[in-house]
Amino acid sequence: MPTTDTGGSSVRRDAETTKAAILRAARHFLARQPHADITLKAVAERAGVSPPLILKYFGNKDTLFTQVMSFETDASALLDTPLDDLGRHMVRQVLVSQTQQGADPLLRIVFAPLHGDRGDILRDNFRTQVTARLAARLSGPDAGLRAELALGTLLGLGVMFGIARGTRLRATDIETIVERYAPAVQAQLTP
Amino acid sequence: MPTTDTGGSSVRRDAETTKAAILRAARHFLARQPHADITLKAVAERAGVSPPLILKYFGNKDTLFTQVMSFETDASALLDTPLDDLGRHMVRQVLVSQTQQGADPLLRIVFAPLHGDRGDILRDNFRTQVTARLAARLSGPDAGLRAELALGTLLGLGVMFGIARGTRLRATDIETIVERYAPAVQAQLTP
Repeated sequence: MPTTDTGGSSVRRDAETTKAAILRAARHFLARQPHADITLKAVAERAGVSPPLILKYFGNKDTLFTQVMSFETDASALLDTPLDDLGRHMVRQVLVSQTQQGADPLLRIVFAPLHGDRGDILRDNFRTQVTARLAARLSGPDAGLRAELALGTLLGLGVMFGIARGTRLRATDIETIVERYAPAVQAQLTP
Repeated sequence: MPTTDTGGSSVRRDAETTKAAILRAARHFLARQPHADITLKAVAERAGVSPPLILKYFGNKDTLFTQVMSFETDASALLDTPLDDLGRHMVRQVLVSQTQQGADPLLRIVFAPLHGDRGDILRDNFRTQVTARLAARLSGPDAGLRAELALGTLLGLGVMFGIARGTRLRATDIETIVERYAPAVQAQLTP
């Protein structure tokens, strides 16, 4: 039980907790709707803070979203599993995330604007933080292409679940979908 | 060679040609960007007509886009092939459409707003005009679910090509991708 410096570290912890809550709120919206439709006010409300506090920590909406546009955290959760079970793991991650949080680890790439800097940042992040990281784990020819096809398959599942809202898909239990869909992903990973 | 009524029918034909050009232009934009970002002026320019002429034929932007939000034409091109070659045909259609026209037969569902009438219209159209139509052609159990998973797989290819812009995917010839990706689609159609 620590007895010294409690005050200082709890202040630091509070600031980190608040920042994390703001990032989580921003990520929540960015996984569900286009950047342009998201207001600082909505992010602040969801994080339980005031809009000025967001500005204090992050400067402005753009710097906040630049941090949120990173796929690093989601890529870790999505990819850190032995390769021979990775297809199943990735499909399960998408479905659990969609079902339990209404979010998706990859889907915000879908909301990337087709023109302009913000879309290009998202695309670059997706390439380096997700595609390249997956490709680096694959052996055999055309690892880069196979990583893209595997991720495309996963993205499509997220679109069908979260945007097209397929009624059968949403009514089926996760493990059944994993059984049926993961082989297509795994076939790209370990052909 | 028709000798009567030429004047009348050519006027009618001109009107139909113009309407078709307007719909084509609207569809062009809707396959590439969110509805809210599309202006009547841009549609008019692309169709080679004046904005007032669009209003004359279609009333307003919303009535125009309601017609464009139909997937009927694309669904026909996508689905009208014998079942045992349908997976390959669908993958090829997506890639040819993306490569040659920068469009995608299904991708505008991705731009469906998550809230509001317009998104719901698009989702309903997608369900009745694409998913249900495909499901009706499948035999065996869970045809509805399998149709959704097959279409999800296709949507993901479109997202990876057109939005995430996977560099390997875009650098690979279409038939190679068909070889590698179509089995995942076909596995849902004829398991």
